[in-house]
This record gives sequence, C-alpha cells and structure tokens, in this order.
Amino acid sequence: MNVEKVPDIIIGRLPIYLRALQRMAEKGIQTTSSQELGETVGISAAQIRKDISQFGEFGKQGTGYHISFLIDKLREILKVDRIWDVALVGAGDVGHALARYQGFVNRGFRIAMVFDNDPTKIGEQVGEFTVQDSAKLVEKVREAHIKVAMLTVPAATAQDVADKLVEAGVKAILNYAPISLAVPKGVEVQHTDPTTHLQRMTYYLD
Amino acid sequence: MNVEKVPDIIIGRLPIYLRALQRMAEKGIQTTSSQELGETVGISAAQIRKDISQFGEFGKQGTGYHISFLIDKLREILKVDRIWDVALVGAGDVGHALARYQGFVNRGFRIAMVFDNDPTKIGEQVGEFTVQDSAKLVEKVREAHIKVAMLTVPAATAQDVADKLVEAGVKAILNYAPISLAVPKGVEVQHTDPTTHLQRMTYYLD
Repeated sequence: MNVEKVPDIIIGRLPIYLRALQRMAEKGIQTTSSQELGETVGISAAQIRKDISQFGEFGKQGTGYHISFLIDKLREILKVDRIWDVALVGAGDVGHALARYQGFVNRGFRIAMVFDNDPTKIGEQVGEFTVQDSAKLVEKVREAHIKVAMLTVPAATAQDVADKLVEAGVKAILNYAPISLAVPKGVEVQHTDPTTHLQRMTYYLD
Repeated sequence: MNVEKVPDIIIGRLPIYLRALQRMAEKGIQTTSSQELGETVGISAAQIRKDISQFGEFGKQGTGYHISFLIDKLREILKVDRIWDVALVGAGDVGHALARYQGFVNRGFRIAMVFDNDPTKIGEQVGEFTVQDSAKLVEKVREAHIKVAMLTVPAATAQDVADKLVEAGVKAILNYAPISLAVPKGVEVQHTDPTTHLQRMTYYLD
C-alpha cells in the first residue's frame, strides 16, 4: 500500500466516506458506486475514486464497491477497527453532551473517563461517568494508556490541560475550547468551534 | 481588493487568525507580527502573510500588524462586522449546550430562535429561549429573515430539516448531525462531528 505520504486533506475525507457507507450498510444496502457515494456526501465521483485508490484497488469497474468490504478497509486505514478509550476533560454543557453522545458507538471510540477541576462537579454523575478531579488527570490517563482526549474546558485553561494530556501520553486531542492549542510534534489536534465554522460561511453570504 | 477567487482553505484560516487577534486585544496587546501570530495559531508566518495579503496590505515591514486594525479588516472580510441572527434546530444535549454557549458574543452571531419537533420539548426554556414547534420553522425563520442556522437533530431527520431551512431562506447551515447534507448551490454547509474529527487523527497514531 502506498500510504506513506497521503495528503491530510484526503485523510480528512475518509471518515466522511466511512460514515456514509455505514449508514448505507445499516439500511441493508450491499454495494454502491463512486457516483452514488459522491451524491450522498457531496463530493465528486472522480475525487472519491482517486482518494480511495491511494490505498489499493477496492472497487471494480462496473460493479462498484462492496460496502462491507470497503467499510472494513477504511476502518483498518483509519485505525478504528479497534476501540479507543477517550478521556473527556471538562464537564460543562459541551462535556455533558459528549458524555451522553451515542454517535461514538461502532465508530471506534468509547469515553472512558471524565475530568473537571470544579469542586462542585467532581463526583457528579455525567451519563454513566463519575467526574474525577483534574488533579489526578496525568496519573489516571497514563495508567490507563489513554491516547485520545476531548477538551471542553474554557479557553483560559485549555493550553494547561493540553500540556497535561500530552505529559500523560495522549497523542490526539479534539479541542472544543475557542483557542488554538500548541502541542509537540507527534501529537495531533483537531479544533472545533461553532463560531469559526459559522464565520467561514458568512464570508460567502451577501 | 482581489477577493474574487480566494481559495476556501484560506477563508477557513481567517476565523482562526481573527480569534487569536481578538484574544490578544483582550489582553491589551496592540501590535503583533506574523511570527507571533503564527506561533499562537500553529501556522507558519509565511502562510499567514500570504493569506492576509490576498485582501490588501494590512501589515508593515518591521512594525507588523496593528491588531485592532487587522481585527476590523478580518471582521469586514468575513462579514462579521454585523450580528447574524441564528436559528437553532434541535433542543437536545448539543442544542442546550449551544443555546447557553457564550462564545458567540462579539464574534458576529446571536441565537434568535430554538426549534424542536418533540412535544415534550416545545415550550421548554433553554437558556434564554423558549423552544418553538418545528412545524412553524419555515414561517418563523422566513419572517425574521434569518440566513444562518445550526442543526442538532438526529441523523434520520437532518436532511428534512435542512430542506425546510433552505425553503425558509437560510444560506448557511452548521450541521452537528452525523450525516452529510445535500443543499442547493448558493447554500453553505459546514459539518462538525466528533467521531469524524477523532478518526482523522487516529489515522496518524500507532
């Protein structure tokens, strides 16, 4: 497989394809074409074929893609053919929503621990989790060999918490705080902020 | 200004710059350099200079950028030098979190209406909003000339709701449902899904 230098923009589209394919599979559909998949996700058929062919020949001219086979391959490529334990830091509104979110099931992730530094939240039940003291974050996360975290703390403390997560061995952080995090090489960060998403769209409005 | 064909990837970075500049301004900082801004947001100084120069000459060799001036320019370019009313559809966990989110203030957006189709939620108070019946969505959103919406409904109903928003005149949808939305040309969509963000990162993990 020619996987050494696949552009990140392609990697970013694979989870979109996987999500659409899993929805098709749930509906009992067994095969699809790059045209059909393209219409579902709003990406051209040619782009989809090109993206997927980076990793091998998974479709056939005429018959298209076997959905369950392509799902297996994408899960393997994205390394979600396993379950990643996730540490959630921040038990505010967004943290609560994530702790109860059903969309991780069958998609490779499971929240394993929830932390907060607010004494009124520590010990509180959030979904199926008891909120733990952030002071124990490094120790607990390291002990459990957790590599993935979600950060839903205020902007003012986000960098400090990110530093602790990195210290504990975390390699991937999904950041909901409205601030850009600095992390060492070898640690991945994705940011999601409703306002920056909205601002990217208003540029195009009249 | 040469704004006709600025690549979307550059547009996507401008809100990140704006957010960092606004944080600097809040701290009382008055000028910055592309180096300093770059370190803050994790993007190279050269890339920042190139991105910003697409819209004019806003910095000076040696003195860098006047932060308040650059903030004004970016707000103008992104059209957040005004306040956009936003319709929020879906009063579940994520909807509740967004309705109470303080991060829209001073950044161009204000939630104006909250809708849900669940009879047990209609009439409920969420933050400062009373949840309205989704059956009235098209009428209410059109009357209020709302152009921006956030969608936090389940995947199964997200496309239907998106169609209604488009019918009502909405031109920008931030979609939290784990499904790709199909919208007509001239309507912008941004997707945010914690699982796809996480999957994009696990690709890079061992």
